[in-house]
Amino acid sequence: MEHSNSLQEKAINTIRFLSADGVQQANSGHPGLPMGAAAIAYTIWTRHLNINPSNPNWFNRDRFILSGGHGSMLLYTMLYLSGYKVTLDDLKQFRQWGSITPGHPEYGMTPGVDVTTGPLGQGFANGVGMAMAEAHLSSIFNKPGYNVIDHYTYAIVTDGDLMEGVSSEAASLAGHLKLGKLIYCYDNNHISIEGSTDVAFTEDRGKRFEAYGWQVLHVNDGNNVELIDQKINEAKKDPRPSIIICDTQIGFGLPTRQNTSKAHGEPPGEEELAAAKQKMGYPVEPKFYVDIDVLKHFRQAIDSGQKKENEWSALLSKYQGSFPDQGRELERRIAGKLPAKWEESIPVFPADPKGMASRASSGKVINTLSSLIPELIGGSADLAPSNNTWIHNSQAFQPGSYQGKNLQFGVREHAMSSILNGMAYHKGLIPYGATFLTFFDYCHPALRLAALSHLQSIWVFTHDSIGVGEDGPTHQPIEHVSVLRAIPNLVSIRPSDANEVIEAWKSAVKRKNGPTVLVLTRQNLPTIDRTVYHPADGLQKGAYVLADLGKGTPEIILMATGSEVSLIIEAGQELAAEGINVRLVSFPSWQLFAEQDQAYKESVFPKSVKYRIVVEAASSFGWERWVGDHGRMITIDHYGASAPASRLFKEFGFTKENIIATAKDMLGKK
Amino acid sequence: MEHSNSLQEKAINTIRFLSADGVQQANSGHPGLPMGAAAIAYTIWTRHLNINPSNPNWFNRDRFILSGGHGSMLLYTMLYLSGYKVTLDDLKQFRQWGSITPGHPEYGMTPGVDVTTGPLGQGFANGVGMAMAEAHLSSIFNKPGYNVIDHYTYAIVTDGDLMEGVSSEAASLAGHLKLGKLIYCYDNNHISIEGSTDVAFTEDRGKRFEAYGWQVLHVNDGNNVELIDQKINEAKKDPRPSIIICDTQIGFGLPTRQNTSKAHGEPPGEEELAAAKQKMGYPVEPKFYVDIDVLKHFRQAIDSGQKKENEWSALLSKYQGSFPDQGRELERRIAGKLPAKWEESIPVFPADPKGMASRASSGKVINTLSSLIPELIGGSADLAPSNNTWIHNSQAFQPGSYQGKNLQFGVREHAMSSILNGMAYHKGLIPYGATFLTFFDYCHPALRLAALSHLQSIWVFTHDSIGVGEDGPTHQPIEHVSVLRAIPNLVSIRPSDANEVIEAWKSAVKRKNGPTVLVLTRQNLPTIDRTVYHPADGLQKGAYVLADLGKGTPEIILMATGSEVSLIIEAGQELAAEGINVRLVSFPSWQLFAEQDQAYKESVFPKSVKYRIVVEAASSFGWERWVGDHGRMITIDHYGASAPASRLFKEFGFTKENIIATAKDMLGKK
Repeated sequence: MEHSNSLQEKAINTIRFLSADGVQQANSGHPGLPMGAAAIAYTIWTRHLNINPSNPNWFNRDRFILSGGHGSMLLYTMLYLSGYKVTLDDLKQFRQWGSITPGHPEYGMTPGVDVTTGPLGQGFANGVGMAMAEAHLSSIFNKPGYNVIDHYTYAIVTDGDLMEGVSSEAASLAGHLKLGKLIYCYDNNHISIEGSTDVAFTEDRGKRFEAYGWQVLHVNDGNNVELIDQKINEAKKDPRPSIIICDTQIGFGLPTRQNTSKAHGEPPGEEELAAAKQKMGYPVEPKFYVDIDVLKHFRQAIDSGQKKENEWSALLSKYQGSFPDQGRELERRIAGKLPAKWEESIPVFPADPKGMASRASSGKVINTLSSLIPELIGGSADLAPSNNTWIHNSQAFQPGSYQGKNLQFGVREHAMSSILNGMAYHKGLIPYGATFLTFFDYCHPALRLAALSHLQSIWVFTHDSIGVGEDGPTHQPIEHVSVLRAIPNLVSIRPSDANEVIEAWKSAVKRKNGPTVLVLTRQNLPTIDRTVYHPADGLQKGAYVLADLGKGTPEIILMATGSEVSLIIEAGQELAAEGINVRLVSFPSWQLFAEQDQAYKESVFPKSVKYRIVVEAASSFGWERWVGDHGRMITIDHYGASAPASRLFKEFGFTKENIIATAKDMLGKK
Repeated sequence: MEHSNSLQEKAINTIRFLSADGVQQANSGHPGLPMGAAAIAYTIWTRHLNINPSNPNWFNRDRFILSGGHGSMLLYTMLYLSGYKVTLDDLKQFRQWGSITPGHPEYGMTPGVDVTTGPLGQGFANGVGMAMAEAHLSSIFNKPGYNVIDHYTYAIVTDGDLMEGVSSEAASLAGHLKLGKLIYCYDNNHISIEGSTDVAFTEDRGKRFEAYGWQVLHVNDGNNVELIDQKINEAKKDPRPSIIICDTQIGFGLPTRQNTSKAHGEPPGEEELAAAKQKMGYPVEPKFYVDIDVLKHFRQAIDSGQKKENEWSALLSKYQGSFPDQGRELERRIAGKLPAKWEESIPVFPADPKGMASRASSGKVINTLSSLIPELIGGSADLAPSNNTWIHNSQAFQPGSYQGKNLQFGVREHAMSSILNGMAYHKGLIPYGATFLTFFDYCHPALRLAALSHLQSIWVFTHDSIGVGEDGPTHQPIEHVSVLRAIPNLVSIRPSDANEVIEAWKSAVKRKNGPTVLVLTRQNLPTIDRTVYHPADGLQKGAYVLADLGKGTPEIILMATGSEVSLIIEAGQELAAEGINVRLVSFPSWQLFAEQDQAYKESVFPKSVKYRIVVEAASSFGWERWVGDHGRMITIDHYGASAPASRLFKEFGFTKENIIATAKDMLGKK
């Protein structure tokens, strides 16, 4: 194709060289992917992708994921060329302070970027979540003649994506679920950072995806638009998810670097880039050159996109006329607004000394909320009976029953988490996922991205401490609560009783700009008597005074989270009976508390009260922030053990007696 | 096979019912796997496994991994029956405080347990590491007629293991590497916690493993010892890793629970268990019944095992006679001792204001150490050129060159980490792995297990802060250093210059009872002039005084880690020039500092010095511990941005000027 000057080839070279110019200008970035996969992007964007550049958030648009996010200039170039609010100047500002064209695509930062990518494998799995969202919503809302939800999810995926375990998990599930509207083009360039993929990646990829139940298609020339186009058409016809293996050349066009790992992540250099342009018959100067006909060609997307959205809007109007209830509901979903008055009909739990596990109360709340907030959808990584996440008035989400709201992820915590993110990116649903807290570790990469990308995804992590008991240290979280607190823009909540669980779920459902993690017990927790202690809605502020016991100013503050709150209540009552003034603070969420103003914080933790004890069956890490230099911490800084939970609480000092003794020691009493 | 009374069948039923009795006695645990996979375990242990129950640490033993660690009673039963130091009383103490039979197998806790398992997929990947260790060591040490290193790695793996992404990553690599001595029996029982595996796991597993390059074998009756035996023999003959898909019935023998998810993780109940014993022709009472002939049958392993080790020892003696140098070296490796005088010949880096990135100095140190400590072996998850981890005087570890010490993991951070652990479990090597610090998230589950299991594995995490620059927030660690500090028994070190990097590597190489993480920069760091500042070996104590500037008692302490140490030096010098007495503390490792005595801690951070500032281009999380109520923190509690690193340091306040202004503000000056 060298030196050919057809408009299409000019257009593809424009993608290549805008991308490469962006990298060269920034003197940083990854030219190899955009140059090698330009024709794939061209084919998807100009021949298949149903989008409206004037409205990047059009609900029924096809989704596009650049899973190899390091090739971000490819995406920014496509957005600019297609007429999104991304300018040539933005391309010139690639990777600069304050620009909308950061090193890796960030959702919310750049109009038209559907997904944050960069950490490999995530985009691949996010797409599966998007396709699941589409399958569910179309199954709920569509009527004969009214396919109001009907779109594809496309991705360009890379060697690195396929090597990552999360994509294996997600692909296996996508195959099982027969997500036929998932179409992935695999940029098979045979090069990774350490050289040829032959050094580590010699598996038969096509066969592997066949084993997952995917349609596997091959394009032996990744620069051949007609071939790619034909295979995408085949993919659309097949009821299975499809992967199109496109043989490409990384850094296509670079005279000395094409097909080498040097093309991957280094600016080509002025000379190499100029030579590439010459070789391909592209103007060397000016940089960021765009032929006016090429631009016109791409910008047809503006009119055609608006037309598509208009047609859809007309269909939606008709739909709303014919099915007014569903129409209103769909409108609400698209707007991302919660139903009116949903909060009013959640029953509270009566005081109960025996109580129930917070995973159990959470299970009840999920079932209550599911009726009130139908967009709540979720499930577990094969632990639904333990995580109490099953929605009883709905089915399983399975091929043939996509309307089901119970997602069955299998033992795939990582893919589950990335899939939740995909559903959150899609919109129209509030997704939740569940596993044991200790297996947060498997979910970690996706949770960070949920927080970074401001996604509303909800995690239900049960079995939250040594309270796990006999399963032992591999299953007992110690540091996990600290770790969750350390991740920026993630809210974690460890409720102390059933009514705090209600509040925690309310907070999670309302929090639209980031993920929420609920940290729940395996073991029973008393339901606190709220006629004696302050109401559970104090949880919304992160920490709140349960009670001041005794007469007069508190001498000491006992604070605790989750299962240890009932312990400080018991200890506080005994101390008060002995004439010590004790403040009891329930502290379910650091992050919610951090959002409060200084006056509120001071009202809970007055500077004048220096004696403070925290009780949490977890690591002490970070608690100095709240107990201060004079505080004490009843916590656990080593791994647990295998034994009945009650024994462990005793052995590790989580007892009323230890709290009382610690308090008296601090106060110099007895 | 019901009611049959052959010794073999009695033996297999003994495995089943000891396991079930253990679970029932504990009223906690997982009977389903042991009852379903008893014949598989029987076949491996009595017909294939080269072990010596009297010496669980025999270096050339076959390794055995129960990857589905929830079936722990199966393993404890095999250990007891085979004559390890695990008694019938230990089985009766299953999951109790102080017992050696915890809920999930823990390495170091129970003689004969080769690997900690429980979190699914880990054991699968650990085995790949063990087989890599065997391949490397045998390639290094064996001579014609002297196969001094020659053993298999067996595992029983489960549906859950195969669903986890980490096993996909590890399996792909194992196939690529042609690890023919890896033999996995897959307990294909079609049941997971949420019910049939058909709800989420319908992929063609055999085809998937064929795609990875494995030999795939089938046993259609998982109770048929002869069939299993035959397939293991086939596996041994094939140069590929082998997976034997054994169709089993979970909870085999339980009258109402067999083949149901209730058999998985619940005690069967007295009645069901009694009925099972009756049905299988097994004595109902006493519980924990062991037929004397059955015990004798199993206990043959004691003599035959000792004989096997004796034969090996004789071979080793002859080897040591013929190849004295290699013989001594192998002896040293087996003993796990470092070479004599290795520390003496490491050159120090001269002071240099320009300096070098700590990833670069680490690369030099790795290459120095590699000559001094030949057991150092490692590599990167496809980032060797960025992580600077390549050992230049060695080859890549590849099929045909297993003697190579450069491991190429592909883009598989999770499997890399679990494989490192497998090599550490194996012994004879000191393994290291590398990626960007932000991708610690992918490694997280394996790092926790390394810490919990006291493994010497070393992680090289580079690109450790916003210093990453243009790659942006997806690639910029913020909370990661905190997270590493929160994991019990993990030592993380963030060295401030090239000479601290040497000390960090020394610490990592010497630390035998847990993992070490090195946190290294992308960007250059000045090499501190140690004629002016205290020596870098202060790093071994975690924190140390670099200098007291000015005259008299310090008024303020400036502390920092890694790349920010040079900033506090600059700021300290200016403050001192203005007459303020400043102590400068380099604080590379919280965990090493925590190990020091109170007197040393007080000598670095005297209580009397209340004004303290920490500077770290990472989260503030936890720093109150060291700066106290009067301290200030120049840190970053939100995600970064995409821009050149120098711009980011300025924008986010990591400047000399900001430190000086903060110090003066605290001290009430100007």
